[in-house]
Amino acid sequence: MTGDNPKHVDQVKVTPGDGIAKLVSKLGGTGFNAKRVAEACEVLHDMVCDADCTKIMTLAGAMVPAGMRAIISDFISNGFVDVLVTTGANLTHDVIEALGCHHLQGSQAADDRSLLEHGTNRIYDVFMPNESYETLEDFIQDLIFDKEMPLVDFLDFLGREMERLAPGNVQDSIIRNCHLKGVPIFCPAFTDCGLGVQLMLNHRGLKLDMFHDLDRFITMAWDMENVGVFIVGGGVPKNFTFQALQFSPNSATRAVQVTMDRPEPGGLSGASLDEAISWGKVNPDAAHVTVVCDATIFLPLALAYLLDLQDGSMDGE
Amino acid sequence: MTGDNPKHVDQVKVTPGDGIAKLVSKLGGTGFNAKRVAEACEVLHDMVCDADCTKIMTLAGAMVPAGMRAIISDFISNGFVDVLVTTGANLTHDVIEALGCHHLQGSQAADDRSLLEHGTNRIYDVFMPNESYETLEDFIQDLIFDKEMPLVDFLDFLGREMERLAPGNVQDSIIRNCHLKGVPIFCPAFTDCGLGVQLMLNHRGLKLDMFHDLDRFITMAWDMENVGVFIVGGGVPKNFTFQALQFSPNSATRAVQVTMDRPEPGGLSGASLDEAISWGKVNPDAAHVTVVCDATIFLPLALAYLLDLQDGSMDGE
Amino acid sequence: MTGDNPKHVDQVKVTPGDGIAKLVSKLGGTGFNAKRVAEACEVLHDMVCDADCTKIMTLAGAMVPAGMRAIISDFISNGFVDVLVTTGANLTHDVIEALGCHHLQGSQAADDRSLLEHGTNRIYDVFMPNESYETLEDFIQDLIFDKEMPLVDFLDFLGREMERLAPGNVQDSIIRNCHLKGVPIFCPAFTDCGLGVQLMLNHRGLKLDMFHDLDRFITMAWDMENVGVFIVGGGVPKNFTFQALQFSPNSATRAVQVTMDRPEPGGLSGASLDEAISWGKVNPDAAHVTVVCDATIFLPLALAYLLDLQDGSMDGE
Amino acid sequence: MTGDNPKHVDQVKVTPGDGIAKLVSKLGGTGFNAKRVAEACEVLHDMVCDADCTKIMTLAGAMVPAGMRAIISDFISNGFVDVLVTTGANLTHDVIEALGCHHLQGSQAADDRSLLEHGTNRIYDVFMPNESYETLEDFIQDLIFDKEMPLVDFLDFLGREMERLAPGNVQDSIIRNCHLKGVPIFCPAFTDCGLGVQLMLNHRGLKLDMFHDLDRFITMAWDMENVGVFIVGGGVPKNFTFQALQFSPNSATRAVQVTMDRPEPGGLSGASLDEAISWGKVNPDAAHVTVVCDATIFLPLALAYLLDLQDGSMDGE
Repeated sequence: MTGDNPKHVDQVKVTPGDGIAKLVSKLGGTGFNAKRVAEACEVLHDMVCDADCTKIMTLAGAMVPAGMRAIISDFISNGFVDVLVTTGANLTHDVIEALGCHHLQGSQAADDRSLLEHGTNRIYDVFMPNESYETLEDFIQDLIFDKEMPLVDFLDFLGREMERLAPGNVQDSIIRNCHLKGVPIFCPAFTDCGLGVQLMLNHRGLKLDMFHDLDRFITMAWDMENVGVFIVGGGVPKNFTFQALQFSPNSATRAVQVTMDRPEPGGLSGASLDEAISWGKVNPDAAHVTVVCDATIFLPLALAYLLDLQDGSMDGE
Repeated sequence: MTGDNPKHVDQVKVTPGDGIAKLVSKLGGTGFNAKRVAEACEVLHDMVCDADCTKIMTLAGAMVPAGMRAIISDFISNGFVDVLVTTGANLTHDVIEALGCHHLQGSQAADDRSLLEHGTNRIYDVFMPNESYETLEDFIQDLIFDKEMPLVDFLDFLGREMERLAPGNVQDSIIRNCHLKGVPIFCPAFTDCGLGVQLMLNHRGLKLDMFHDLDRFITMAWDMENVGVFIVGGGVPKNFTFQALQFSPNSATRAVQVTMDRPEPGGLSGASLDEAISWGKVNPDAAHVTVVCDATIFLPLALAYLLDLQDGSMDGE
Repeated sequence: MTGDNPKHVDQVKVTPGDGIAKLVSKLGGTGFNAKRVAEACEVLHDMVCDADCTKIMTLAGAMVPAGMRAIISDFISNGFVDVLVTTGANLTHDVIEALGCHHLQGSQAADDRSLLEHGTNRIYDVFMPNESYETLEDFIQDLIFDKEMPLVDFLDFLGREMERLAPGNVQDSIIRNCHLKGVPIFCPAFTDCGLGVQLMLNHRGLKLDMFHDLDRFITMAWDMENVGVFIVGGGVPKNFTFQALQFSPNSATRAVQVTMDRPEPGGLSGASLDEAISWGKVNPDAAHVTVVCDATIFLPLALAYLLDLQDGSMDGE
Repeated sequence: MTGDNPKHVDQVKVTPGDGIAKLVSKLGGTGFNAKRVAEACEVLHDMVCDADCTKIMTLAGAMVPAGMRAIISDFISNGFVDVLVTTGANLTHDVIEALGCHHLQGSQAADDRSLLEHGTNRIYDVFMPNESYETLEDFIQDLIFDKEMPLVDFLDFLGREMERLAPGNVQDSIIRNCHLKGVPIFCPAFTDCGLGVQLMLNHRGLKLDMFHDLDRFITMAWDMENVGVFIVGGGVPKNFTFQALQFSPNSATRAVQVTMDRPEPGGLSGASLDEAISWGKVNPDAAHVTVVCDATIFLPLALAYLLDLQDGSMDGE
């Protein structure tokens, strides 16, 4: 370990006008989470440049309320994602923004009793008015669709319909861009979100056969010989993705996770990627990096890094 | 604030032979998380003593692999839980123990590549041999049941069948004890667990209509006028439960959560119970306590506290 | 690794009337932090029972405001500590309680602007009135002592004087009990506390030669052939203790740390005890356990465990 | 609260070639820690642009081993810091780099027993060979200085001597640049570092009167009418700085802290800046922001932001 010529830690210098890709690259010479930001960006770049690699992004946490909707959409539009596995909340908030409703910059110190009286829901330091749910309900009521559709197909249908129906920002919709790029969306806990509740309440008789989506996802995983996984925030999307790799002969050849959770309490969200090797979820030879960082800080950096490299902004350096 | 005669912080004294209930009660006079352990136990005790209170327990994290199976079962057997909302993993591991398989005390520093070669899966410092999944598969294959059953009914059926079929420890099974006590089990992300995968793979044609369970759960929530919520570890079970309270006219009158997650990254697992007030999930007048603690430490203390009080061990003190 | 017959994870059962030692022992059969609570208590017990072992306790975090003063005092009175290394704050708050002032049970949600107006200082959910500092100042002003005394001797002198001078609870004073038991107190960042500030302001010309205490501590460490370290909360006390072991030929033969910090951000407070092995601070063969838990929860459990075993409460079980 | 027209959350768009200042500014429209990164950078910029503001930087955590030495130096060289309060470790590692020794990029998964045998010390994922300490000892032995010097003067002297004596990278030395810019360095726990130990061991008879530095620091704080505090990582440097503001009539008019610690366990490192208002450490009207982020990620972003703005890279946008 100590005999293989470890590299010196760079005492990184920052210069005015450094672009993001340049700054992130410099961090590769450091230690702690700065180094991991750079390593994670590099692994993501390798995934993106490897034409044979199926890129799965998993999404947990209130990313859309926190302002990450367009960032995630641009990951998709730029071809950096082939399959999306997400919580229902991110889909719900994506539709809400498409309908012209907005999340508001609030404060985590707000008086929640007063917010309740004003019909305002708090997500840490972000507010969302109750009217958003009413607008969502109207939209859902007006949808006409085949009640036999599996969820993965319904979400694709929703992406197609959104432009026609939604008066808000559709261009940066995650669901819309997944539809346009042919990226299937899996949402294993779909009944755990406002979109799911409204569909159930307003389209009585609708069935939601989750075994269909599970089957489709595991079948897909079975065929992926080269899989890169980008895990944002843990939760069910992480576990569902890893489970498919566990039950298939394949395992991730590259893996990046960004989370604030840690291994010690034993939950899967904070579990190390090394642990995933024991399960056959991550390949023993896979490049894998965990960044302990709020995803809202890492995601913009990672996207900017990928776009800069794609754009050739780093050329000649 | 400072004018309303705040209590002195007790410099708590511990004496040999203190029972758990006595020690926990003493902590009520302190500060930080020690105080919250005591407050949380008190709120749980109030819930248990209030005959009109519907008690929902939500369960996330690998509680069964960590040795909390009998503790959770005893919460149920003793009538401290009326409804269980859980991740699929805890159900899967519960069945695995019922089938006579065991989780093993391992080390988080184990070499995961070597574990992979030995067919051993790691969950932080706990190991689980691959054979457990094979045993689970055999059990699932042999099950004969009505393919139209909603999940909540299937889980009750499983509790009934377990005694007949499983050669291992059935007595402390969470699923079994829920069946015996008439406690319905909701598992909103059931496709995200080994039990779900095995059912799908071995009973082709089986449907899993999750809208049925959602409907059942929201209808139940609609009728609960007095709800106490005990949240272990966040995740989908926490959100699913709170979502039902949000969409019903009711809100929790008492709430306890134990978690290592924190509010700052904005995810629901770490969200404060105050935030839940703004959504109408927790009543503005509810007694509510968050304990920042590994659930494996808190759960045994809380159960011992409740049993001690029930047993009258604190009498005369 | 998997061939050496790992133990089954016990699905621990709690019974009414379990004492703390019994409950903690049961947790030894589980996983995650529950298991570590038991392992840590065992290592502490081994330290206490080993007559040749010098037991160093390091103390960071606002333990006295949080109500842990008598617990820590009883660790000392019972002979469970031979050397104390602490932050100045715990000494300051110890004197304040000895002077008859109290910390108050408050709320972390208090309005800090209003507290400021009321002369009340907040420590998370504990309040301390400004008068405490005034009382402290009066006490300090009245002290008559040799201005040449090294800090470690001054703190011993303070322990002797406290009974004579302080009208409050002296019996449970950490400083007092250290004096009575001949336990030296080292406080490497003594200027970083109210006691230090008041001494400097009220006894002009007083010197505080910290090299003296460093020399004394390193010399002591040089002579300790068998050292057990109990680290509560990291910080300077942890580093100062480990530094002495690094610069001496000895290293800890047993080590327990309880902290909420984690290794990933690279700070020493959260550094693993394995890392300390590379430095020669902890012996490669040492029994060592890190419990990720609020110290206010662990300390009462650990003391109760040790007292129960000492008392023989576990006899015949 | 909800009536004062809260701003919409921006769904931030990243474009190729975005400079750091531009990206960070965009994050100001989001939520969670992304928003706080932007707010913190803005407050730092305001501090830097306010000629009347005394800017105190406090430094904890192994920032130099992690590769942040030149970044911190550039904060100083660019006039972004007027007073530095730091742990001794950062000074020790700064000297070590000045002496031509290096920290190495290692792995947190290294075998610590093997590292011990190879004389390599681990700091999370960074390695430091034992020879560094030997080189440090030689350097310290050769120093000739007035043994009556207070620590703050000794550290200034060290900055002056470093160029003459040290063969390594002196240009980016924190101590050297503080000397050049007239920035005093306070190190309240100086006996808690290798530099302190080597001085004590090699210059017998040397006194380290820490009351002198405390007096100097409190006197300085007494005269600062407009104080901005930038807290990196908590610990003694944070507390020592706030203590001086508590005991002086002044309080911070601007405050930024970046830390991975949280308030719940009650330690000062994770204490909120609101709590500091109750103590009179932070002004009730102060702009103050806490970023929950590894400092190794935040520091490069913050420096790049300040340099970009200084450079006018944002002009015309």
